[in-house]
Amino acid sequence: MRTTTGWQATGAEGLKPARLERRELRRDDIAVRVDYCGLCHSDLQALHNHDGHSPLVPGHEFTGVVSELGPEVTGFSVGDTVAVGNIVDSCRHCPMCRAGQENFCHEFPTLTYGGRDRVDGSTTLGGFSREYVVREDFAYRLPEGLDPAAAAPLMCAGITVWEPLRALDVGPGKRVAVVGLGGLGHLAVKLAVALGATTTVISRTQDKADDARRLGAQEFIVSADSAQMTAARESFDVVIDTVSAPHDLVPYLRLVGLDGTLSVVGYLGEITVEVTDLLIGRKKLSSAGSGGRPATAELLQFCADNAVLPDIEVLPSAEVATALTRMERNDVRYRFVLDMSDLDEAG
Amino acid sequence: MRTTTGWQATGAEGLKPARLERRELRRDDIAVRVDYCGLCHSDLQALHNHDGHSPLVPGHEFTGVVSELGPEVTGFSVGDTVAVGNIVDSCRHCPMCRAGQENFCHEFPTLTYGGRDRVDGSTTLGGFSREYVVREDFAYRLPEGLDPAAAAPLMCAGITVWEPLRALDVGPGKRVAVVGLGGLGHLAVKLAVALGATTTVISRTQDKADDARRLGAQEFIVSADSAQMTAARESFDVVIDTVSAPHDLVPYLRLVGLDGTLSVVGYLGEITVEVTDLLIGRKKLSSAGSGGRPATAELLQFCADNAVLPDIEVLPSAEVATALTRMERNDVRYRFVLDMSDLDEAG
Repeated sequence: MRTTTGWQATGAEGLKPARLERRELRRDDIAVRVDYCGLCHSDLQALHNHDGHSPLVPGHEFTGVVSELGPEVTGFSVGDTVAVGNIVDSCRHCPMCRAGQENFCHEFPTLTYGGRDRVDGSTTLGGFSREYVVREDFAYRLPEGLDPAAAAPLMCAGITVWEPLRALDVGPGKRVAVVGLGGLGHLAVKLAVALGATTTVISRTQDKADDARRLGAQEFIVSADSAQMTAARESFDVVIDTVSAPHDLVPYLRLVGLDGTLSVVGYLGEITVEVTDLLIGRKKLSSAGSGGRPATAELLQFCADNAVLPDIEVLPSAEVATALTRMERNDVRYRFVLDMSDLDEAG
Repeated sequence: MRTTTGWQATGAEGLKPARLERRELRRDDIAVRVDYCGLCHSDLQALHNHDGHSPLVPGHEFTGVVSELGPEVTGFSVGDTVAVGNIVDSCRHCPMCRAGQENFCHEFPTLTYGGRDRVDGSTTLGGFSREYVVREDFAYRLPEGLDPAAAAPLMCAGITVWEPLRALDVGPGKRVAVVGLGGLGHLAVKLAVALGATTTVISRTQDKADDARRLGAQEFIVSADSAQMTAARESFDVVIDTVSAPHDLVPYLRLVGLDGTLSVVGYLGEITVEVTDLLIGRKKLSSAGSGGRPATAELLQFCADNAVLPDIEVLPSAEVATALTRMERNDVRYRFVLDMSDLDEAG
């Protein structure tokens, strides 16, 4: 086994630096020195839900540099800058994998952390660490010009909103609303704007109105203002709902126009609607999460070509606890990225 | 006021023949001698829910002959064979009405029965009667070659499945499944087949397998057979769920392929799903009901051009109670149509 250093959950004490084992490189593995890892709401959830039985190292949106190659690796060289997202393997033969949607693998994709390695059955440990070993097909070369720190959140937040935007044909002439301006939301806005859509931000208060315009949104709606919500009735082809807490979907369904779609990407629990809320206007309720290999590569190239990157706040990885606490109260505009280089000293 | 005869709900005694008032013709009204009226599940529901306070005459899919014209009627002549569906008016100026989706009128369309007339505020009385007075824009000329008895159910059951089939682009190369082979379902099968889709029927038992093939379906799946359901996982672009009772949607969502849609048109109550059931495969949950004026006219022409008509059982209107009882236990293949001519004697 190889060893590295990372931030591991230790029950009540939270994340602590720990020596972690990484597998020896298989024939098609690469070793990646992790430089930057974004903080995702699902990291918070994983920590909250952690039972202490299996090791937990969060982090599933990271960038770094290839440090070593398995003997049959063909796609990378040592020194390449790469990005890794929230899945690191899949069966590769089911219809979803063959369609390039490894995120929907019928045998379930291997998650970057808290997953079960398909070869040795071990629990995967995430990117809050200085090294990650990954099958080369699930690493992506970072295109020229993409800042590696800012690019990290593209690998989860970015691809999670990119896939529905693309699947729902967002582009010029389409009217898109993004509910919630957080990590996912602000990337949805930037991407929708770059795709050429007319883009509106819907937020609980007026606080983020200036930010919304700076991100490129043409309109801003305060969801607590019923007059504004009523005026916007049925005026969007696509509504991307990025709110992570449970909430009533009906006010947002009302904003969807004829044959339009409400895509719920922030909250992944149980939802209840009246069929008539869908019937009137033939509205569609959908969701999306993570991404397949082709869409992920496409997103990175699109972001490089269109200079789209998240707004980030970079902190040394030692401040992960602060970052988690602030993220929990939405005190970040708009995504924390941990700089992992301080782990060299910790190790 | 004009008078006619019809079948009116009288509390515990069920439907009884009664003298009904119809309004005098307004400038753009036509009077229609109702010849045939289909029986819809919503008629059963209306009777079950009837509070006895307002008059109830069910029936919202009927055909007949124009017997009189208001002074400004331009679209019809006396003697024309026409069809009327489940809406008889709308605001005509909201965005949905302007888009030809009067069924989704922002001010709510006037229902054919149990609705509130937009001019005089009276409660509308339905097509289980010998005459109906309707604004000409909500009557449709029956194209040549469509049997008036069999055409009646097109006006509710037919249009309710036609709109989602069209909105979801069903045609050659599309894989469509229809859940439930009843009034709506058998029309969905016939229409999907005529549109050129590869069509599968999903039914609880094997009983209707022969019928499904006769209706044109290529495949038949018994929903109680988990092996068959598993084998069909993610194999449809569109699943039209016509089951009218509350039921678990998850087994049918599993049949929907990448970016496909489950359209729930039979049950119109509350539904609950896990977002992840939509997320995996980016599936869409939708609904549809009734139809706008352009789609209704299009459906009638399509049915005439393609010889699509429901399988009906015609009964004298005096046997409405029998028909309702049999419909309640699904003992009809596949739609009852009442022949209203016996009301001439009753009157």
